[in-house]
Amino acid sequence: MREYVTTKQEINKNSLPYNLYQKAKKFGIWNPVDIDFTQDKEDWKKLNEEQQLEVLTQFAQFIGGEEAVTQDILPMIMAVSKKGWFEEESYLTTFLFEEAKHAEFFSLFLEEIGVKDDLTHLLTPGYRKLFDETLPAVMGRLIEDQSPEAMIDAAVTYNIFAEGVLAETGYWFFHEALSSANLFPGFISGIRNVKRDEGRHIGFGTFLIQRLISENPELELFERVQQRLQELLPIAMMLTEGKEDKQVTSLGIERGKSMEFAMKQLQARLTVLSRAKGKTLEEIYNTDIALEEV
Amino acid sequence: MREYVTTKQEINKNSLPYNLYQKAKKFGIWNPVDIDFTQDKEDWKKLNEEQQLEVLTQFAQFIGGEEAVTQDILPMIMAVSKKGWFEEESYLTTFLFEEAKHAEFFSLFLEEIGVKDDLTHLLTPGYRKLFDETLPAVMGRLIEDQSPEAMIDAAVTYNIFAEGVLAETGYWFFHEALSSANLFPGFISGIRNVKRDEGRHIGFGTFLIQRLISENPELELFERVQQRLQELLPIAMMLTEGKEDKQVTSLGIERGKSMEFAMKQLQARLTVLSRAKGKTLEEIYNTDIALEEV
Repeated sequence: MREYVTTKQEINKNSLPYNLYQKAKKFGIWNPVDIDFTQDKEDWKKLNEEQQLEVLTQFAQFIGGEEAVTQDILPMIMAVSKKGWFEEESYLTTFLFEEAKHAEFFSLFLEEIGVKDDLTHLLTPGYRKLFDETLPAVMGRLIEDQSPEAMIDAAVTYNIFAEGVLAETGYWFFHEALSSANLFPGFISGIRNVKRDEGRHIGFGTFLIQRLISENPELELFERVQQRLQELLPIAMMLTEGKEDKQVTSLGIERGKSMEFAMKQLQARLTVLSRAKGKTLEEIYNTDIALEEV
Repeated sequence: MREYVTTKQEINKNSLPYNLYQKAKKFGIWNPVDIDFTQDKEDWKKLNEEQQLEVLTQFAQFIGGEEAVTQDILPMIMAVSKKGWFEEESYLTTFLFEEAKHAEFFSLFLEEIGVKDDLTHLLTPGYRKLFDETLPAVMGRLIEDQSPEAMIDAAVTYNIFAEGVLAETGYWFFHEALSSANLFPGFISGIRNVKRDEGRHIGFGTFLIQRLISENPELELFERVQQRLQELLPIAMMLTEGKEDKQVTSLGIERGKSMEFAMKQLQARLTVLSRAKGKTLEEIYNTDIALEEV
């Protein structure tokens, strides 16, 4: 027999996931079709071929990534739902909706600036490793396995690494290369919304990991988080490595800077997560650490 | 290797699922926390015990149902995603979000009128049969099996039967018993939004079935739809049967009337579906039949 949560008890309104869910219903409903890309179309023509390729490479990775994670978050929603965590499940429905919307946003932008080429070849080996192998494997496992270990691995890979390190590094690129040069105002306004949505996603992942660490003190899950991130490090190296020797890219980004930024992000995430051990679930539920960036 | 849709091609903006997705982004973002239940609380006190029980029985079934289907739609999103149907997947992310929101809506209403009892015992055997056994089985199968037959069975059970027949009959009850008597204005305003969301859900299910029938003419899928509905009929009988002999319920609903309404709904759905055979996918994509109620 199925267990029903909502026929038995009220929603826990003090819980962090419910809080994130409420924020998502307010801020996560922006609509990509409302964005005006008129100036972006003009800006696109101003870039030389090398610069266009540099932008397109970032775009291809983002759009493919958003499409991939829309698929990959599904087993996590299933896992949370099987556990009867109604507040978490409610929040994750907005998370999924937002991922699809992000893919739509990038797709509409490419259409508006007139790029009709197949960009699949711009997905690099490091990227393929993460999105074709690592992520589907660690997320797909949740369909059968809702153990704390499986859920920790999933949240670290998806929320902390893919969103908290890689996507954040992508936003940093867009800021450094485009926003600073006053290029693509429509795109930049959309990316602000994407970044805010992702702030909630990372907040959720951080909360979930903290919850699991706190509820299972005997499992040494923080050590597992560290180990998992260690395993992901080579992928981060592959992803941020440039193919060329030039010290500065066509858009003026210093090589090595994005890796530096990525590592700083990673360190910040680890510091937050290291504080979870020994805390009660109530303390974690009521924390606002995870809401820092929302 | 994963197949990426969005790095290769533009969104098909003429497709019905994209159309539904756009509508959902406009109309499916209403927020249950914005509803004022002040008068509803007063109205609740006006009902006698028998009437309260009649309302609560409907509520328990709705809230449990919304919670259940939030879980059960996940394998369908997975199936559609595995097929690379990006427009369908995008739409279904809004569908999932809406189901969670409906469960929240019913939960907030119960909290506001001050009902704190465990309502699980009000879930009837017919209900348990459908939501504990039939739906999870037919939907769960989609995790492994994305055949046209499996998808047809899922869409018929979930969209045509649970949403198109049962939920619609529930709205009919709320209208007959509550709205007509000018009771529960907050609830009724919310249920209007729920019903509109569900109109899109049923529209999607109808489209999906039509698509599958049209793409697989050799499989006699319309016959399968009819057969599946035949199998579900006993559950419909169990669900609409009254426990008592009284001809009129405490809220003035004539026994037999809801069964009559349910059967009318079912017939209307079948008529629409019977038209799909022999049509091309383009004809179905461009139809507005499925949008009738949105």
